[in-house]
Amino acid sequence: MRILKALKKEPIDRIPFWYMRQAGRYLPEYLQLKGSDSFLELAMNPKKAIEISIQPYKRFRMDAIILFADILTPLQAVGIPIEFHEKIGPTLKYDVFNKDDLKKIKNFEPEKQVFYVREIIQGIKNYIKNINDDNVALIGFSGAPFTLLSYLVEGGTAKKFEKTKEFMFNFEKDFHHLMEDITNLTIEYLKFQIQSGVDLVQIFDSWGGILSYHHYEEFCFPYLKKIIKNIKQYVPVILFVGNNAHLVKLLSLLEPDCISLDWRVEDITMIPENIAIQGNMDPLVLFGSSERVKKETLNILNKFSKRKNFIFNLGHGIYPNTPLHNVEVMVQTIKEYRLNE
Amino acid sequence: MRILKALKKEPIDRIPFWYMRQAGRYLPEYLQLKGSDSFLELAMNPKKAIEISIQPYKRFRMDAIILFADILTPLQAVGIPIEFHEKIGPTLKYDVFNKDDLKKIKNFEPEKQVFYVREIIQGIKNYIKNINDDNVALIGFSGAPFTLLSYLVEGGTAKKFEKTKEFMFNFEKDFHHLMEDITNLTIEYLKFQIQSGVDLVQIFDSWGGILSYHHYEEFCFPYLKKIIKNIKQYVPVILFVGNNAHLVKLLSLLEPDCISLDWRVEDITMIPENIAIQGNMDPLVLFGSSERVKKETLNILNKFSKRKNFIFNLGHGIYPNTPLHNVEVMVQTIKEYRLNE
Repeated sequence: MRILKALKKEPIDRIPFWYMRQAGRYLPEYLQLKGSDSFLELAMNPKKAIEISIQPYKRFRMDAIILFADILTPLQAVGIPIEFHEKIGPTLKYDVFNKDDLKKIKNFEPEKQVFYVREIIQGIKNYIKNINDDNVALIGFSGAPFTLLSYLVEGGTAKKFEKTKEFMFNFEKDFHHLMEDITNLTIEYLKFQIQSGVDLVQIFDSWGGILSYHHYEEFCFPYLKKIIKNIKQYVPVILFVGNNAHLVKLLSLLEPDCISLDWRVEDITMIPENIAIQGNMDPLVLFGSSERVKKETLNILNKFSKRKNFIFNLGHGIYPNTPLHNVEVMVQTIKEYRLNE
Repeated sequence: MRILKALKKEPIDRIPFWYMRQAGRYLPEYLQLKGSDSFLELAMNPKKAIEISIQPYKRFRMDAIILFADILTPLQAVGIPIEFHEKIGPTLKYDVFNKDDLKKIKNFEPEKQVFYVREIIQGIKNYIKNINDDNVALIGFSGAPFTLLSYLVEGGTAKKFEKTKEFMFNFEKDFHHLMEDITNLTIEYLKFQIQSGVDLVQIFDSWGGILSYHHYEEFCFPYLKKIIKNIKQYVPVILFVGNNAHLVKLLSLLEPDCISLDWRVEDITMIPENIAIQGNMDPLVLFGSSERVKKETLNILNKFSKRKNFIFNLGHGIYPNTPLHNVEVMVQTIKEYRLNE
């Protein structure tokens, strides 16, 4: 698999690529299959989730298929009520200070609570086996504890994260206690995905970039350290933190196999050569002219391909309404790019 | 004035401070004076705007009063229709591709269009004169061209800035043309403020941090260079760019008198010693415990006070609902902090 080879700096014929949220609303075939189903309904429907995971591969033949699942799946599994509303996003009903809410949390029993995730993983693996493409890897994923905690505390997607920081800066013990619980849940969830057949995993700390370097070090670092140490003995771990330009040094100290770069990351000198890098392209470049898309794709390739352990990706998930012809231009530019040996 | 002394590394008795959006919704006296008036109505009412500008000084005795005005004032002045709606924010009616809209833009005649800004500046200066506080400076301000352009293109406040980047990456000539126009408008507007009596100015590129280093260099740098070069011959210029951790090196090359740091900026080694720094405190720390506020305020003071040209500020405007007692703790901590000579 091209991505696994790149992670280990083994010889590759071309730069491997996939892109975050590659299965999603910019694809007409996704919108058709989705119909009026909510995101959560799709993620719990193995037949549809397998097809959705595969859709981008069928179109662009990237080097990885990522499991179609919801970042909130493990929280829902242990009994946190979650609703999805079009345009609003998820709504979680949980009060971190209510002891009755705390009591309702169940033990995590993946075979019972998220059996469908195994079905989806196995379905995608079967597809890959049947098409006989040795290069394509299956990526599992999980949210990072801080990001999951912020959904819990905010009750959904936030803008300024006032409630999360209020909780963090006022009730440190409760914060750390909850982070510890979510960390253990995340490890079990990732292990379940690995046992089910994923080839590598990506951890998404989508909201981690709202914290300063020192707050990330104090409030997130120990938990990510525990997860990464635990998981990377089984499969390679890619770490994505949104808006992470100021955190790159700290993320390197976590020793993931690969760091996924936001488009704003400029200086990567503090990432040791043995840690692979991925990403760095602004997904909104894809809203520009095709000449611009080609130029920026080449810039990224020229900048990073010498590193030997680089995976092409965007600096953030691809947006709905992204013009498909520009994705095509980006993909063609990567595939035609010749590596100088 | 303590701030002007700090900018020039002249001896000061203590670290000067003010904070962005210090006149605003976290103050009960502001909410009372505001009543049902919109932001724009307040900004065009000299009597109220003078009082609002002064309110935070009366409470906390900071070293600067910042002109209460709207960032969109110069755009409104040249004829762009702007409406304010509670919770939604501003709505601009302008189509960058409509030639009829372009024709409606008027020449900027500050004496005629924004005479009230002069009245407000003079009113604040009179207040400062009467209270006889030699230390307090009056700060004027303007939005940066990119931030103003984004309001125009998006028609208001955006989240992902899809339209702005679509415009920028597709219609480069139109983009640069519009940036040039807004740059000239900004220079004239700032000169008008300086002629009216402000002691220094701050340029707010609130949304600049959505751009990568290279895009900021390509699309924003030349315009800010022109403004800063032009204005700093009259008064000192502070440059604030939101989410600017990855841009610090580039901002230094613009040679402002002072760079205002987001709370995520960790590495400031690339800022030359002759450029002052301001900010770096996460405004949401003020939602924490008082112990946390004191600790973090001291951390910032210990980190930067040796630099001799440091102004205490937040890394972003203070939020509505910020607990006043914590602002008091922060202010007291700064005032009691002894500089080691």
